[in-house]
Amino acid sequence: MHGENEVVVLRLGHRPGRDNRMTTHVGLTARALGADRVSIAGAASDSKATIEDITDRFGGPFEVELTTEPRALVRDWAGTVVHLTMYGQRIQDVEADIREAHASGPVLIVVGAEKVPFDVYEQADYNVGVTNQPHSEVAGLAVFLDRLFEGRQLDREWENADRRVVPKETGKRVEPVDEE
Amino acid sequence: MHGENEVVVLRLGHRPGRDNRMTTHVGLTARALGADRVSIAGAASDSKATIEDITDRFGGPFEVELTTEPRALVRDWAGTVVHLTMYGQRIQDVEADIREAHASGPVLIVVGAEKVPFDVYEQADYNVGVTNQPHSEVAGLAVFLDRLFEGRQLDREWENADRRVVPKETGKRVEPVDEE
Repeated sequence: MHGENEVVVLRLGHRPGRDNRMTTHVGLTARALGADRVSIAGAASDSKATIEDITDRFGGPFEVELTTEPRALVRDWAGTVVHLTMYGQRIQDVEADIREAHASGPVLIVVGAEKVPFDVYEQADYNVGVTNQPHSEVAGLAVFLDRLFEGRQLDREWENADRRVVPKETGKRVEPVDEE
Repeated sequence: MHGENEVVVLRLGHRPGRDNRMTTHVGLTARALGADRVSIAGAASDSKATIEDITDRFGGPFEVELTTEPRALVRDWAGTVVHLTMYGQRIQDVEADIREAHASGPVLIVVGAEKVPFDVYEQADYNVGVTNQPHSEVAGLAVFLDRLFEGRQLDREWENADRRVVPKETGKRVEPVDEE
Protein backbone atom coordinates (compact mmCIF):
# COMPACT_ATOMS: atom_id res chain seq x y z
CA MET A 1 0.00 0.00 0.00
CA HIS A 2 0.96 3.61 -0.48
CA GLY A 3 3.50 4.76 2.10
CA GLU A 4 4.32 1.24 3.32
CA ASN A 5 6.97 -1.29 2.44
CA GLU A 6 6.02 -3.56 -0.43
CA VAL A 7 3.97 -6.71 0.18
CA VAL A 8 3.96 -9.34 -2.57
CA VAL A 9 2.01 -12.61 -2.64
CA LEU A 10 3.57 -15.58 -4.44
CA ARG A 11 1.09 -18.26 -5.49
CA LEU A 12 2.88 -21.60 -5.88
CA GLY A 13 1.72 -24.81 -7.53
CA HIS A 14 -1.05 -23.46 -9.76
CA ARG A 15 -2.54 -26.28 -11.84
CA PRO A 16 -4.19 -24.85 -14.98
CA GLY A 17 -7.90 -25.52 -15.14
CA ARG A 18 -8.32 -27.16 -11.76
CA ASP A 19 -6.94 -24.22 -9.76
CA ASN A 20 -8.15 -21.30 -11.88
CA ARG A 21 -10.79 -20.12 -9.46
CA MET A 22 -8.72 -20.57 -6.32
CA THR A 23 -5.80 -18.74 -7.91
CA THR A 24 -8.09 -15.92 -9.03
CA HIS A 25 -9.42 -15.67 -5.47
CA VAL A 26 -5.87 -15.60 -4.07
CA GLY A 27 -5.06 -12.71 -6.40
CA LEU A 28 -8.26 -10.76 -5.73
CA THR A 29 -7.84 -11.25 -1.99
CA ALA A 30 -4.25 -10.01 -2.20
CA ARG A 31 -5.46 -6.92 -4.05
CA ALA A 32 -8.47 -6.18 -1.83
CA LEU A 33 -6.58 -6.65 1.43
CA GLY A 34 -3.55 -4.48 0.82
CA ALA A 35 -0.85 -6.39 -1.08
CA ASP A 36 0.89 -4.57 -3.94
CA ARG A 37 1.40 -7.46 -6.32
CA VAL A 38 0.66 -11.13 -6.90
CA SER A 39 3.13 -13.38 -8.68
CA ILE A 40 1.66 -16.65 -9.94
CA ALA A 41 3.87 -19.65 -10.69
CA GLY A 42 2.37 -21.40 -13.68
CA ALA A 43 0.16 -20.97 -16.72
CA ALA A 44 -2.52 -18.82 -15.13
CA SER A 45 -3.32 -16.36 -17.89
CA ASP A 46 -7.08 -16.62 -17.23
CA SER A 47 -6.63 -15.72 -13.57
CA LYS A 48 -4.26 -12.91 -14.51
CA ALA A 49 -6.80 -11.47 -16.95
CA THR A 50 -9.61 -11.59 -14.38
CA ILE A 51 -7.56 -9.89 -11.68
CA GLU A 52 -6.39 -7.20 -14.11
CA ASP A 53 -9.95 -6.61 -15.27
CA ILE A 54 -11.06 -6.03 -11.66
CA THR A 55 -8.13 -3.65 -11.14
CA ASP A 56 -9.06 -1.73 -14.31
CA ARG A 57 -12.61 -1.28 -13.07
CA PHE A 58 -12.23 -0.91 -9.31
CA GLY A 59 -8.79 0.66 -9.10
CA GLY A 60 -5.24 0.02 -8.03
CA PRO A 61 -2.33 0.17 -7.98
CA PHE A 62 -2.05 -3.62 -8.10
CA GLU A 63 0.19 -5.73 -10.31
CA VAL A 64 -0.21 -9.31 -11.54
CA GLU A 65 2.62 -11.31 -13.04
CA LEU A 66 3.20 -14.90 -14.10
CA THR A 67 6.55 -16.41 -13.23
CA THR A 68 8.45 -19.52 -14.26
CA GLU A 69 11.08 -18.87 -11.59
CA PRO A 70 9.25 -18.87 -8.26
CA ARG A 71 12.21 -20.33 -6.39
CA ALA A 72 14.43 -17.48 -7.52
CA LEU A 73 11.84 -14.99 -6.25
CA VAL A 74 11.94 -16.64 -2.83
CA ARG A 75 15.72 -17.10 -2.77
CA ASP A 76 16.57 -13.58 -3.92
CA TRP A 77 13.90 -11.72 -1.93
CA ALA A 78 15.49 -8.68 -0.25
CA GLY A 79 13.26 -8.74 2.78
CA THR A 80 11.20 -11.12 4.88
CA VAL A 81 9.73 -14.33 3.45
CA VAL A 82 6.58 -15.67 5.11
CA HIS A 83 5.24 -19.06 4.05
CA LEU A 84 1.65 -19.76 5.09
CA THR A 85 1.22 -23.40 6.05
CA MET A 86 -0.91 -25.32 8.53
CA TYR A 87 2.34 -26.87 9.84
CA GLY A 88 3.90 -23.54 10.80
CA GLN A 89 4.18 -21.48 13.95
CA ARG A 90 0.98 -20.04 15.32
CA ILE A 91 0.15 -16.66 13.79
CA GLN A 92 -0.68 -15.22 17.20
CA ASP A 93 2.88 -16.05 18.33
CA VAL A 94 4.78 -14.51 15.41
CA GLU A 95 2.60 -11.76 13.95
CA ALA A 96 4.15 -8.97 16.04
CA ASP A 97 7.66 -9.89 14.85
CA ILE A 98 6.47 -9.96 11.24
CA ARG A 99 4.79 -6.56 11.57
CA GLU A 100 8.08 -5.22 12.89
CA ALA A 101 9.94 -6.76 9.94
CA HIS A 102 7.42 -5.14 7.56
CA ALA A 103 8.01 -1.76 9.18
CA SER A 104 11.63 -1.97 8.02
CA GLY A 105 11.43 -3.85 4.71
CA PRO A 106 9.34 -5.66 2.08
CA VAL A 107 7.48 -8.90 2.78
CA LEU A 108 6.92 -11.84 0.44
CA ILE A 109 3.98 -14.08 1.40
CA VAL A 110 4.14 -17.55 -0.13
CA VAL A 111 0.85 -19.41 -0.57
CA GLY A 112 0.82 -22.97 -1.88
CA ALA A 113 -1.80 -24.98 -3.72
CA GLU A 114 -0.97 -28.66 -3.23
CA LYS A 115 2.34 -29.89 -1.86
CA VAL A 116 4.94 -27.19 -1.35
CA PRO A 117 8.61 -28.16 -1.94
CA PHE A 118 10.60 -28.56 1.24
CA ASP A 119 13.13 -25.88 0.32
CA VAL A 120 10.37 -23.27 0.65
CA TYR A 121 10.00 -24.27 4.31
CA GLU A 122 13.75 -23.90 4.71
CA GLN A 123 14.11 -20.60 2.88
CA ALA A 124 11.17 -18.92 4.59
CA ASP A 125 12.01 -16.65 7.50
CA TYR A 126 8.65 -17.61 9.00
CA ASN A 127 6.45 -20.62 8.37
CA VAL A 128 3.12 -19.45 9.73
CA GLY A 129 -0.08 -21.33 10.48
CA VAL A 130 -3.34 -19.40 10.43
CA THR A 131 -4.58 -22.16 12.70
CA ASN A 132 -2.90 -25.55 12.46
CA GLN A 133 -6.04 -26.91 10.83
CA PRO A 134 -6.61 -27.71 7.15
CA HIS A 135 -8.81 -25.08 5.54
CA SER A 136 -8.16 -22.70 2.65
CA GLU A 137 -5.15 -20.83 1.35
CA VAL A 138 -7.49 -17.95 0.53
CA ALA A 139 -8.75 -17.78 4.12
CA GLY A 140 -5.24 -18.01 5.53
CA LEU A 141 -4.02 -15.22 3.28
CA ALA A 142 -6.98 -13.01 4.20
CA VAL A 143 -6.50 -13.33 7.95
CA PHE A 144 -2.75 -12.91 7.60
CA LEU A 145 -3.06 -9.67 5.59
CA ASP A 146 -5.70 -8.27 7.94
CA ARG A 147 -3.38 -8.88 10.90
CA LEU A 148 -0.24 -7.72 9.08
CA PHE A 149 -1.84 -4.36 8.28
CA GLU A 150 -3.95 -4.30 11.46
CA GLY A 151 -6.95 -3.23 9.41
CA ARG A 152 -5.27 -0.23 7.72
CA GLN A 153 -6.01 -1.83 4.33
CA LEU A 154 -9.73 -1.29 4.93
CA ASP A 155 -9.27 2.47 4.69
CA ARG A 156 -7.01 2.59 1.66
CA GLU A 157 -7.79 4.75 -1.35
CA TRP A 158 -8.07 3.31 -4.86
CA GLU A 159 -6.56 5.09 -7.84
CA ASN A 160 -7.79 5.07 -11.44
CA ALA A 161 -11.03 3.28 -10.65
CA ASP A 162 -13.92 3.84 -13.02
CA ARG A 163 -16.48 2.78 -10.43
CA ARG A 164 -16.88 2.65 -6.69
CA VAL A 165 -19.24 0.73 -4.42
CA VAL A 166 -20.96 2.94 -1.86
CA PRO A 167 -21.52 1.01 1.40
CA LYS A 168 -25.23 0.56 2.09
CA GLU A 169 -27.38 -0.92 4.83
CA THR A 170 -29.56 -2.67 2.24
CA GLY A 171 -29.19 -3.14 -1.49
CA LYS A 172 -26.48 -2.18 -3.95
CA ARG A 173 -25.10 1.15 -4.99
CA VAL A 174 -22.29 1.57 -7.49
CA GLU A 175 -21.18 5.03 -8.61
CA PRO A 176 -19.04 6.09 -11.54
CA VAL A 177 -15.80 7.74 -10.46
CA ASP A 178 -14.88 10.98 -12.18
CA GLU A 179 -11.23 11.82 -11.98
CA GLU A 180 -9.69 14.90 -13.49
CA MET B 1 -17.36 -22.55 19.99
CA HIS B 2 -17.66 -24.03 23.43
CA GLY B 3 -19.07 -21.55 25.94
CA GLU B 4 -20.21 -19.06 23.28
CA ASN B 5 -23.46 -18.46 21.47
CA GLU B 6 -23.85 -20.50 18.32
CA VAL B 7 -22.40 -19.27 15.01
CA VAL B 8 -23.70 -20.89 11.83
CA VAL B 9 -22.56 -20.23 8.26
CA LEU B 10 -25.13 -20.55 5.48
CA ARG B 11 -23.65 -21.08 2.02
CA LEU B 12 -26.12 -19.94 -0.65
CA GLY B 13 -26.15 -20.59 -4.37
CA HIS B 14 -23.92 -23.65 -4.55
CA ARG B 15 -23.67 -24.89 -8.14
CA PRO B 16 -22.74 -28.59 -8.19
CA GLY B 17 -19.43 -29.26 -9.90
CA ARG B 18 -18.41 -25.69 -10.57
CA ASP B 19 -18.55 -24.58 -6.92
CA ASN B 20 -17.42 -27.78 -5.17
CA ARG B 21 -14.03 -26.51 -4.16
CA MET B 22 -15.16 -23.05 -3.11
CA THR B 23 -17.98 -24.54 -1.06
CA THR B 24 -15.58 -27.00 0.57
CA HIS B 25 -13.28 -24.10 1.42
CA VAL B 26 -16.19 -22.12 2.88
CA GLY B 27 -17.02 -25.09 5.11
CA LEU B 28 -13.43 -25.78 6.18
CA THR B 29 -12.87 -22.10 6.90
CA ALA B 30 -16.05 -21.98 8.99
CA ARG B 31 -14.80 -24.99 10.97
CA ALA B 32 -11.21 -23.82 11.42
CA LEU B 33 -12.14 -20.29 12.43
CA GLY B 34 -14.72 -20.98 15.11
CA ALA B 35 -18.17 -21.51 13.59
CA ASP B 36 -20.25 -24.41 14.95
CA ARG B 37 -21.99 -25.49 11.78
CA VAL B 38 -22.20 -24.91 8.03
CA SER B 39 -25.47 -25.27 6.18
CA ILE B 40 -25.12 -25.61 2.40
CA ALA B 41 -28.01 -24.81 0.08
CA GLY B 42 -27.82 -27.26 -2.79
CA ALA B 43 -26.51 -30.64 -3.88
CA ALA B 44 -23.12 -30.46 -2.22
CA SER B 45 -22.66 -34.01 -0.97
CA ASP B 46 -19.00 -34.07 -2.09
CA SER B 47 -18.19 -30.93 -0.11
CA LYS B 48 -20.11 -32.28 2.88
CA ALA B 49 -18.13 -35.53 2.79
CA THR B 50 -14.79 -33.70 2.60
CA ILE B 51 -15.61 -31.40 5.50
CA GLU B 52 -16.84 -34.32 7.62
CA ASP B 53 -13.71 -36.29 6.83
CA ILE B 54 -11.54 -33.41 8.06
CA THR B 55 -13.65 -33.16 11.22
CA ASP B 56 -13.28 -36.91 11.83
CA ARG B 57 -9.52 -36.65 11.57
CA PHE B 58 -8.74 -33.25 13.08
CA GLY B 59 -11.60 -32.91 15.55
CA GLY B 60 -14.72 -30.98 16.28
CA PRO B 61 -17.40 -30.39 17.24
CA PHE B 62 -18.48 -29.14 13.82
CA GLU B 63 -21.62 -30.00 11.89
CA VAL B 64 -22.33 -29.96 8.15
CA GLU B 65 -25.81 -30.08 6.70
CA LEU B 66 -27.38 -29.70 3.28
CA THR B 67 -30.58 -27.70 3.09
CA THR B 68 -33.29 -27.21 0.50
CA GLU B 69 -34.87 -24.44 2.58
CA PRO B 70 -32.21 -21.76 3.00
CA ARG B 71 -34.74 -18.95 3.02
CA ALA B 72 -36.57 -20.53 5.95
CA LEU B 73 -33.28 -20.74 7.86
CA VAL B 74 -32.74 -17.01 7.34
CA ARG B 75 -36.35 -16.04 7.98
CA ASP B 76 -36.76 -18.13 11.13
CA TRP B 77 -33.33 -17.48 12.65
CA ALA B 78 -33.72 -16.67 16.35
CA GLY B 79 -30.78 -14.31 16.52
CA THR B 80 -28.74 -11.99 14.35
CA VAL B 81 -28.42 -12.49 10.59
CA VAL B 82 -25.27 -11.14 8.93
CA HIS B 83 -25.00 -11.22 5.13
CA LEU B 84 -21.48 -10.77 3.78
CA THR B 85 -21.55 -8.71 0.58
CA MET B 86 -19.24 -6.21 -1.09
CA TYR B 87 -22.22 -3.83 -1.22
CA GLY B 88 -22.73 -3.78 2.54
CA GLN B 89 -21.69 -1.53 5.40
CA ARG B 90 -18.00 -1.43 6.20
CA ILE B 91 -16.98 -4.16 8.63
CA GLN B 92 -14.95 -1.70 10.66
CA ASP B 93 -18.12 0.35 11.23
CA VAL B 94 -20.42 -2.47 12.38
CA GLU B 95 -18.24 -5.20 13.87
CA ALA B 96 -18.52 -3.93 17.46
CA ASP B 97 -22.33 -3.99 17.26
CA ILE B 98 -22.26 -7.51 15.85
CA ARG B 99 -19.91 -8.72 18.58
CA GLU B 100 -22.35 -7.30 21.11
CA ALA B 101 -25.23 -9.10 19.41
CA HIS B 102 -23.23 -12.34 19.50
CA ALA B 103 -22.63 -11.92 23.23
CA SER B 104 -26.39 -12.16 23.74
CA GLY B 105 -27.52 -14.61 21.04
CA PRO B 106 -26.68 -16.80 18.04
CA VAL B 107 -25.39 -15.43 14.74
CA LEU B 108 -26.13 -16.67 11.22
CA ILE B 109 -23.56 -15.63 8.61
CA VAL B 110 -24.84 -15.80 5.04
CA VAL B 111 -22.26 -16.24 2.28
CA GLY B 112 -23.34 -16.23 -1.36
CA ALA B 113 -21.82 -17.75 -4.46
CA GLU B 114 -23.19 -15.86 -7.46
CA LYS B 115 -26.16 -13.51 -7.27
CA VAL B 116 -27.90 -13.45 -3.91
CA PRO B 117 -31.69 -12.92 -3.93
CA PHE B 118 -32.74 -9.45 -2.83
CA ASP B 119 -34.83 -10.71 0.09
CA VAL B 120 -31.62 -11.86 1.78
CA TYR B 121 -30.44 -8.24 1.79
CA GLU B 122 -33.77 -7.23 3.30
CA GLN B 123 -33.96 -9.97 5.91
CA ALA B 124 -30.37 -9.58 7.11
CA ASP B 125 -29.87 -7.52 10.25
CA TYR B 126 -26.50 -6.50 8.83
CA ASN B 127 -25.23 -6.48 5.27
CA VAL B 128 -21.48 -6.31 5.78
CA GLY B 129 -18.65 -5.63 3.35
CA VAL B 130 -15.21 -7.00 4.18
CA THR B 131 -13.97 -4.22 1.94
CA ASN B 132 -16.31 -2.93 -0.77
CA GLN B 133 -14.10 -4.60 -3.36
CA PRO B 134 -14.77 -7.81 -5.28
CA HIS B 135 -12.63 -10.64 -3.95
CA SER B 136 -13.57 -13.98 -2.39
CA GLU B 137 -16.39 -15.20 -0.18
CA VAL B 138 -13.83 -17.42 1.56
CA ALA B 139 -11.61 -14.44 2.36
CA GLY B 140 -14.55 -12.36 3.54
CA LEU B 141 -15.77 -15.13 5.82
CA ALA B 142 -12.28 -15.66 7.27
CA VAL B 143 -11.74 -12.01 8.16
CA PHE B 144 -15.27 -11.71 9.51
CA LEU B 145 -14.88 -14.72 11.83
CA ASP B 146 -11.46 -13.58 13.03
CA ARG B 147 -12.92 -10.19 13.94
CA LEU B 148 -16.14 -11.62 15.39
CA PHE B 149 -14.19 -13.83 17.80
CA GLU B 150 -11.29 -11.37 18.16
CA GLY B 151 -8.84 -14.23 17.71
CA ARG B 152 -10.28 -16.46 20.46
CA GLN B 153 -10.88 -19.17 17.84
CA LEU B 154 -7.11 -19.56 17.44
CA ASP B 155 -6.84 -20.98 20.95
CA ARG B 156 -9.79 -23.34 20.84
CA GLU B 157 -9.47 -27.01 21.77
CA TRP B 158 -10.50 -29.77 19.38
CA GLU B 159 -12.41 -32.82 20.61
CA ASN B 160 -12.28 -36.36 19.22
CA ALA B 161 -9.38 -35.68 16.87
CA ASP B 162 -7.23 -38.64 15.92
CA ARG B 163 -4.30 -36.43 14.95
CA ARG B 164 -2.91 -33.03 15.77
CA VAL B 165 -0.43 -30.76 13.97
CA VAL B 166 2.35 -29.52 16.22
CA PRO B 167 3.41 -25.99 15.20
CA LYS B 168 6.99 -25.96 13.94
CA GLU B 169 9.49 -23.37 12.74
CA THR B 170 10.43 -25.59 9.78
CA GLY B 171 8.94 -28.77 8.41
CA LYS B 172 5.89 -30.79 9.37
CA ARG B 173 4.98 -32.63 12.52
CA VAL B 174 1.72 -34.49 13.01
CA GLU B 175 1.07 -36.49 16.19
CA PRO B 176 -1.55 -39.09 16.93
CA VAL B 177 -3.95 -38.01 19.66
CA ASP B 178 -4.64 -40.55 22.40
CA GLU B 179 -7.82 -39.91 24.27
CA GLU B 180 -9.06 -42.07 27.09
